[in-house]
Amino acid sequence: MTYTAPLADMRFALREVAGLHQVASLPGYEHATDDTIDAVLEEAAKLSGNGLAPLNREGDKVGAKLENGVVRTAPGFASIYKEFVDGGWNSLPFDPEFGGQGMPWLLAATVQEMWQAANMGFGLVLLLNQGAIDAIHHHGSAEQKATFLPRMISGEWTGTMNLTEPQAGSDLAQLKCRAVKTGDHYLITGQKIFITYGEHDMAENIVHLVLARTPDAPPGVRGISLFIVPKLLVGADGKPGRRNDLRCVSLEHKLGIHASPTCVMSFGDDGGAEGYLVGEQGRGLSYMFTMMNNARLSVGIQGLAIAERAYQQAAAFAKSRVQSKDDGSAKPEPVAIIHHADVRRMLMTMRAQIEAMRALGYYTAAGIDGALKHPDKEIARKTQDRVDLLIPIVKAWFTDLGNEIASIGVQVHGGMGFIEETGAAQHLRDARILPIYEGTNGIQARDLVGRKIAKDGGETMFALVSEMRALADEMKAAVGDDMAAIRTALAAGADALEQATMWVAEAAKAELVAALAGSTPFLRLAGTALGGWLLAKGALAAQAKLAGRDGDPRFLEAKIVTARFYVEVILPPALAQLGPLKAAGRTVFALEEAQF
Amino acid sequence: MTYTAPLADMRFALREVAGLHQVASLPGYEHATDDTIDAVLEEAAKLSGNGLAPLNREGDKVGAKLENGVVRTAPGFASIYKEFVDGGWNSLPFDPEFGGQGMPWLLAATVQEMWQAANMGFGLVLLLNQGAIDAIHHHGSAEQKATFLPRMISGEWTGTMNLTEPQAGSDLAQLKCRAVKTGDHYLITGQKIFITYGEHDMAENIVHLVLARTPDAPPGVRGISLFIVPKLLVGADGKPGRRNDLRCVSLEHKLGIHASPTCVMSFGDDGGAEGYLVGEQGRGLSYMFTMMNNARLSVGIQGLAIAERAYQQAAAFAKSRVQSKDDGSAKPEPVAIIHHADVRRMLMTMRAQIEAMRALGYYTAAGIDGALKHPDKEIARKTQDRVDLLIPIVKAWFTDLGNEIASIGVQVHGGMGFIEETGAAQHLRDARILPIYEGTNGIQARDLVGRKIAKDGGETMFALVSEMRALADEMKAAVGDDMAAIRTALAAGADALEQATMWVAEAAKAELVAALAGSTPFLRLAGTALGGWLLAKGALAAQAKLAGRDGDPRFLEAKIVTARFYVEVILPPALAQLGPLKAAGRTVFALEEAQF
Repeated sequence: MTYTAPLADMRFALREVAGLHQVASLPGYEHATDDTIDAVLEEAAKLSGNGLAPLNREGDKVGAKLENGVVRTAPGFASIYKEFVDGGWNSLPFDPEFGGQGMPWLLAATVQEMWQAANMGFGLVLLLNQGAIDAIHHHGSAEQKATFLPRMISGEWTGTMNLTEPQAGSDLAQLKCRAVKTGDHYLITGQKIFITYGEHDMAENIVHLVLARTPDAPPGVRGISLFIVPKLLVGADGKPGRRNDLRCVSLEHKLGIHASPTCVMSFGDDGGAEGYLVGEQGRGLSYMFTMMNNARLSVGIQGLAIAERAYQQAAAFAKSRVQSKDDGSAKPEPVAIIHHADVRRMLMTMRAQIEAMRALGYYTAAGIDGALKHPDKEIARKTQDRVDLLIPIVKAWFTDLGNEIASIGVQVHGGMGFIEETGAAQHLRDARILPIYEGTNGIQARDLVGRKIAKDGGETMFALVSEMRALADEMKAAVGDDMAAIRTALAAGADALEQATMWVAEAAKAELVAALAGSTPFLRLAGTALGGWLLAKGALAAQAKLAGRDGDPRFLEAKIVTARFYVEVILPPALAQLGPLKAAGRTVFALEEAQF
Repeated sequence: MTYTAPLADMRFALREVAGLHQVASLPGYEHATDDTIDAVLEEAAKLSGNGLAPLNREGDKVGAKLENGVVRTAPGFASIYKEFVDGGWNSLPFDPEFGGQGMPWLLAATVQEMWQAANMGFGLVLLLNQGAIDAIHHHGSAEQKATFLPRMISGEWTGTMNLTEPQAGSDLAQLKCRAVKTGDHYLITGQKIFITYGEHDMAENIVHLVLARTPDAPPGVRGISLFIVPKLLVGADGKPGRRNDLRCVSLEHKLGIHASPTCVMSFGDDGGAEGYLVGEQGRGLSYMFTMMNNARLSVGIQGLAIAERAYQQAAAFAKSRVQSKDDGSAKPEPVAIIHHADVRRMLMTMRAQIEAMRALGYYTAAGIDGALKHPDKEIARKTQDRVDLLIPIVKAWFTDLGNEIASIGVQVHGGMGFIEETGAAQHLRDARILPIYEGTNGIQARDLVGRKIAKDGGETMFALVSEMRALADEMKAAVGDDMAAIRTALAAGADALEQATMWVAEAAKAELVAALAGSTPFLRLAGTALGGWLLAKGALAAQAKLAGRDGDPRFLEAKIVTARFYVEVILPPALAQLGPLKAAGRTVFALEEAQF
């Protein structure tokens, strides 16, 4: 149950697929030198493997506990969090003006994978803080930024997102929390649920970002405003002082991520919690969208991370568990189960999809950097469009795969996988939240089809299809069976993705409901095809490096094998979603509600 | 979180798909009249819905507990078990000579679905007892049968299967438990793990069936013998007396089925537990195979059952949870989420696969009856071959689907699905054992390809393919779009299944490892195609009944819609496993162990 950051594969994905060098050469990233990046990766690998990973099982077992209004995090969490703050880990991608290190989001995503793989229950506090920093950074006043950002970026204070209410989950238009202006601030009253790290004992202060309605606000989403509501009010000296009128009234009893306190928060039981309007009234929800790409990328990375963790554990078990003879040998002695074909198929299925996710996840993170920093405005805009298109795919496809792969991890363990002490089941329980939070995967599919494809009639996706085809053309020059098989599959993937996108773009105009009925199969097809494209890109790079004797040949050969397995075994059923995505609309509403 | 047995759909599957009338007309089943069967179904529906289902959540929460060597089952379990015994539920399919009711296995499977859907943690005691009864019935001496069967069939005593040891899971050849002859009995020593209901407080006595080795036995499977080892030794009066030298030393802490005690059993700590050889020495493992078909069918039925439970809960939630506007309407008001296309797609995905499983599960159970009772020996033999072929498909495909569907059930609930109080997560946790126990699903796929297909070169499967084609021909006369779409898909399914079987049969001879590498994708293809066939059969029957105004038209129309959804949305990706199942062998062993 250890975790070792897969540095070799991470570096490969960074350099050969995501274009780390291009990112590091963008203006503003001059300090992201090879040496610095390597040092960050090495140190993060140590902290994740030696510091965070060993706390994961105990964090699950003990969980966070609410005692007299105080949330006690699991053993070791507070002290490892202090290491994070002291080591400056929290500040990696943020604005140097407020104490950040201004490193590329691509690097931050890579390091994020390590934290989340090592300990997702812990890692959530980092994600929520990141989202809150983003929101204040983009929309807060100069004073708000000066007051809150340096402490949040250092991690001395942590942020939360207070969105959900019992009647307002996916549909935030229904929210009821109220904010009434009183002098220079607002008084916030109401209850919020599912507030991750809404209360804990690891930081000096907690900065809640709360969506609420002002009294005269119009109904629906345009009546929602965003407020900063600190747990401890910040004095003129910038230090936390008097306790604000808010508290955690209970913790949810959840399937997984037990170490992460999921709070029911009550604001204003004693008259109203002091809150400060962020930006303009009525724009709260649109401000939330600002941080959504980063947040959804991070959740996708969690899916990748938990899959990697499950894979490492399953591979180690499969090498050590001895059971039954080898079918490929005449010897009667039992062998390690990794020698059995179906176990090997399971491990390859985990591994190939993990590498595909890593490629697409890092590629998308690099796009965030490009959109932010590229000096050519037109390129930056197109890159932003591409990121916007990819984000729902990364969020939903990665998190579905995270669950599937964690479940395979249990299966590889056989009976031991069902026993909690083994730890394989924890990954499955932890992973199960990922397709739900930060917008359910159904909502991601809806965003992909109803917004992203509909917006430009599929143009951004067609540009990706062109790149897939360009790579397939480039691969014609590559020698060998493997490359031929990968190239053929890549071309098939491009064709299927193009046809699916054309259909969806048309349907989104003509019969939206039919497009939405096919949106989840479409997302699956798109994710799998795009993942295959980037694995093909990696395989071609690996072959070139092999030819140039540049790098570990065993590692590079494995990249090619894994890509071929992916395109031959994983890709075809996903491409066969082309029929279903078109057909679903015909029958999905053919029954009446009462027939269910 | 209630459960209502889906009687209408069960009756339809029994009568229109599985051929209940043909089964009931077999010699020996004369007493299985329509009235009797209906009465059994109605009463079982009441007991499962009103008695068992309400105990399910508490059973999960409290679980079974070991206190001073005694296992206390969850609240209400002992008293509901007494209702089972008093009501004669346990004895349904067993030999009247020993107090059974001699009803068809088809009926027993249907009722089993209800018990397992209502409360899987409870239902397991019934399954284990069934397996032990089967083993003693087939291989025990007249005296053993007289001593044990009547009490086990009534349920006053329950049976267990003591197979697994820490080093011997899937590979029973490695087991070490010892049995030494002393006078007229054997002394058993050793430790067994994962013993379901190995100790509990619901029955007067527990009859352990234990696999062990005699001192001079050859190594491997031919040295394994089967022993009856009762918890309380049975006196000359037939009553339980002195405590035998065996005990439960601990309970496993599991992901799910918390109500079912999973025991570590220790035999012979004080010198040896008294045991009685069943049949001949060295034939223990082959005796186990006798009961395997029934046991694996039952586990498959558990997969169906948990899927049905999850579906009912998800559908109820989707009808009551109001969130976001209806995309197909101009009204801005939020609606129940069942009106959203992706939620509807999820519900249809659950429902269609459940109906396909029910059809194939009952069809297989009817085959067990035909093989046992058909007066024409040749038909009986062919029916047995068919059952043997279908069993690994039923076990593995149903239990994989059980997990997938339980996970969709969580997803439909959104954030509430992740909260344990909702109950949706329990189904997912409970379902996760199903692909593991009673032979992992990898072992089922191996059995299907390496034994069942290899044995006759695919002949039994080709006979099924012929029946699929015959139905497709018959459907040519059926009117309407739906029937045309279903017929086309049915023909495609038959083609794909035939091609896949031909390839697998050939590969099993020529390169077994490649066949095994593709065995899991093959099983998925086969299960999905066969399920589609029986849904098509049901759709055709539904259309005929509609034409004849025979039955509830809404129900019958829904059968046709659901079949069409299945063949258009569920079937295509499964048929696209044809490529992967052939290709997997190329790459699965291309990496060395050290590269994982």
